[in-house]
Amino acid sequence: MATITGMETSDAIRSRRNVRTYDERPITGESLELILEAGRRAPSASNRQPWDFVVVTDRQKLEQMSNMWRNARHVAGSAATIVLVLPEPEDDRYRLMDQYDLGQATMAMTLAAADLGIGSAHAAVGDQEACRVLFAIPESHYCPYLLALGYPGDGPLAPIERPDRRALDEIVHLGRW
Amino acid sequence: MATITGMETSDAIRSRRNVRTYDERPITGESLELILEAGRRAPSASNRQPWDFVVVTDRQKLEQMSNMWRNARHVAGSAATIVLVLPEPEDDRYRLMDQYDLGQATMAMTLAAADLGIGSAHAAVGDQEACRVLFAIPESHYCPYLLALGYPGDGPLAPIERPDRRALDEIVHLGRW
Repeated sequence: MATITGMETSDAIRSRRNVRTYDERPITGESLELILEAGRRAPSASNRQPWDFVVVTDRQKLEQMSNMWRNARHVAGSAATIVLVLPEPEDDRYRLMDQYDLGQATMAMTLAAADLGIGSAHAAVGDQEACRVLFAIPESHYCPYLLALGYPGDGPLAPIERPDRRALDEIVHLGRW
Repeated sequence: MATITGMETSDAIRSRRNVRTYDERPITGESLELILEAGRRAPSASNRQPWDFVVVTDRQKLEQMSNMWRNARHVAGSAATIVLVLPEPEDDRYRLMDQYDLGQATMAMTLAAADLGIGSAHAAVGDQEACRVLFAIPESHYCPYLLALGYPGDGPLAPIERPDRRALDEIVHLGRW
């Protein structure tokens, strides 16, 4: 089966969408590594790199994870889901920064996935205790998000002409608000 | 002058680095729009799209902005800097989510910039009042970050073989922590 690779950056950016239904194709170890490597390279405040990534492909665990938040149902059918882990910060001012930096790492991973034709959708984790127990996450850390991955079950990724977003001239202010 | 365009996604991901010295080349309006468009398309919780972007190219203002935080010096020499603006959330649980989603939008913009050969480096904003006054930001909003942009003054972007990051097998956990 042909693998889609080598999408131009602007095509990956325009093709990325939240994908919550997946077909049966597994994600190869090589593809997973490319996705995780993109996250690893993300910038962070003082190069803290606060993230850890737990990679889950076991179907039973994916099904358990899908109950960790009402918007995590799609995780059950994903080919792989990455548990995004952050430290409980040593100083509260890092709590916001770590979230911001984790957002950067997440976006790098979703675009690396899109480049491979792989869809993604993140979900928050409501039940922290369930996540800690299932994956032996130490008390020093928590699981803010899950990033589900899989080949789209609803048609391949392709550039989206009219995304469901605020208009550019509404969000962009030239020189001043 | 030749413009670098059309980098493959994985090359953009591997070439992106924090660039804090810039040459004299301005960024065209077309390139700025591609960068901002990438941010616009980022995903966010419940598709809130909490961000606003104030684009600054005025040299005097860029110099003033460089004093808004000790790690914002590089903004003074940037070709353009985007003030990343978030709302003061209506509910405190959105404060972390909005930071995470802004991180996603930021990474999309830095990769879109890298695709064009444009370097970037973000900086936190310490002096919120100075930022609000300079850009007429309403009291309902604040300025968590600046994203400085410019063509690198220290050599073009190129894939980095050994980034200064934690090893992949240190941050990735298979199946469990």
